[in-house]
Amino acid sequence: MQSIRFLRIPRFPPNVLFFHLLPLKPISKISIKNFSSQIGSSPSSSSSKLLFRQLFEKESSTYTYLLANVSHPDKPALLIDPVDKTVDRDLNLIRELGLKLVYAMNTHVHADHITGTGLIKTKVPGAKSVISRASGSKADLLIEPGDRISFGDLFLEVRATPGHTAGCVTYVTGDEPDQPHPRMAFTGDALLIRGCGRTDFQGGSSKQLYESVHSQIFTLPKDTLIYPAHDYAGFSVSSVGEEIENNPRLSKDLEEFKKIMENLNLAYPKVMDMAVPANLVCGLQHPASS
Amino acid sequence: MQSIRFLRIPRFPPNVLFFHLLPLKPISKISIKNFSSQIGSSPSSSSSKLLFRQLFEKESSTYTYLLANVSHPDKPALLIDPVDKTVDRDLNLIRELGLKLVYAMNTHVHADHITGTGLIKTKVPGAKSVISRASGSKADLLIEPGDRISFGDLFLEVRATPGHTAGCVTYVTGDEPDQPHPRMAFTGDALLIRGCGRTDFQGGSSKQLYESVHSQIFTLPKDTLIYPAHDYAGFSVSSVGEEIENNPRLSKDLEEFKKIMENLNLAYPKVMDMAVPANLVCGLQHPASS
Repeated sequence: MQSIRFLRIPRFPPNVLFFHLLPLKPISKISIKNFSSQIGSSPSSSSSKLLFRQLFEKESSTYTYLLANVSHPDKPALLIDPVDKTVDRDLNLIRELGLKLVYAMNTHVHADHITGTGLIKTKVPGAKSVISRASGSKADLLIEPGDRISFGDLFLEVRATPGHTAGCVTYVTGDEPDQPHPRMAFTGDALLIRGCGRTDFQGGSSKQLYESVHSQIFTLPKDTLIYPAHDYAGFSVSSVGEEIENNPRLSKDLEEFKKIMENLNLAYPKVMDMAVPANLVCGLQHPASS
Repeated sequence: MQSIRFLRIPRFPPNVLFFHLLPLKPISKISIKNFSSQIGSSPSSSSSKLLFRQLFEKESSTYTYLLANVSHPDKPALLIDPVDKTVDRDLNLIRELGLKLVYAMNTHVHADHITGTGLIKTKVPGAKSVISRASGSKADLLIEPGDRISFGDLFLEVRATPGHTAGCVTYVTGDEPDQPHPRMAFTGDALLIRGCGRTDFQGGSSKQLYESVHSQIFTLPKDTLIYPAHDYAGFSVSSVGEEIENNPRLSKDLEEFKKIMENLNLAYPKVMDMAVPANLVCGLQHPASS
């Protein structure tokens, strides 16, 4: 399957958005108000357009994120890092909230669980899978640094944050006045709360991870909220400022960081040999189409 | 131990707040700005004063909530439903964020885990334990419906929501313009996301729970965010409007609700015989002081 190259856009041109390929309907102020008053529009930041939900899969301690633009009459939604085992939960929530799932996205090729993106595509006609071109995976959209992923007039920008894997990206909400404030960064395994992803396989590199986080994440405004792909200690969110100050690995200098990463002595991930090949094809070894 | 009765205040008088018993310092606009830009002030709602964190304890699937007022120079903070096993995590986070823990609160006497409030009191001099008078528990502050629990100029109001236990309360952020919007309701086990607490022991009553939720929670603005004491399916937040529409138990009429609750056939909670007696004394069978 080819990525849909005509959707590629240069870095940050205004008003050229993926979702604009779908027909746009006029936005009624009344319908926005009614909708957001019913479902609680913004538990995450101060945009009344954004509906945001953080969802947890216990076995792999994975966070899946649901973002939707409730100011658009279609209520376009995207899922970041869905897990195969919780696809029904996620799609049921999307149905209950009256959202239209547009994108099922991954931050990278996971080694600890099977992505739900392929399964979602079999259940939601029209939903597109998204992953970075650098990941070497198949997906409907192969994104690159600087791309925008838009849902209505909200968007995520794509930042390359390799180091845990060669194809890791961080999705960051826009920096324009009509986008959520504070900004939100979905960091995958590049930056975890008080931690980071391991760098000892899948094209990992501790030097590259350090540079990715410092150049692409720690340069964001300090109040930017950090939403990682996992947490093992029960934390749900952090911020750039908090991680710059308190991250026990990434607050160190590069040499110390490399030493820490070389001495983690982590076990081989239990499901890696099954998960990585599956995740290279959206979690489906024999996808119906892709 | 006696509750501190002189802190009792009638329903919602302005400017008479628990925390005002501590010396107030002038609030500098610069210090607010600096602080919130460092730590990400508001992942939950649109108040720049509120720092909010949702924390998870995996074994009992319990949510602990940290709320702090970062516009006050003391950065007063409170914890709702801390768990004994994760007290060190919570206090470490509070230290890292430069907050001052004022209250360690429970929504009710838990049957499935041991509260962390007693342990917190041994580790944080000056922190006060809080629970409802109707719970029959010991604590520093025995609160009643209509009380305000203030931290700086932010406050929670206390609503009685018995039915899971006789002493259950819901804490709700204030409804004044300077309070977080949308409002946030910490519902304990009275209202769970797409569920509710069981009503077959600890003075439980399905009729009473139904009336509590319908009169005290479902009457809040529909965008009020619901933060329960537990979730077993990986949901983190809901809203009043969403639960009115989609809660498979509480969206039914009273008779159907009672039938559902009578036929749950739930197992006896594993740790109840240990947890309830401990939780009646802040989680400490032999508390140093209380």
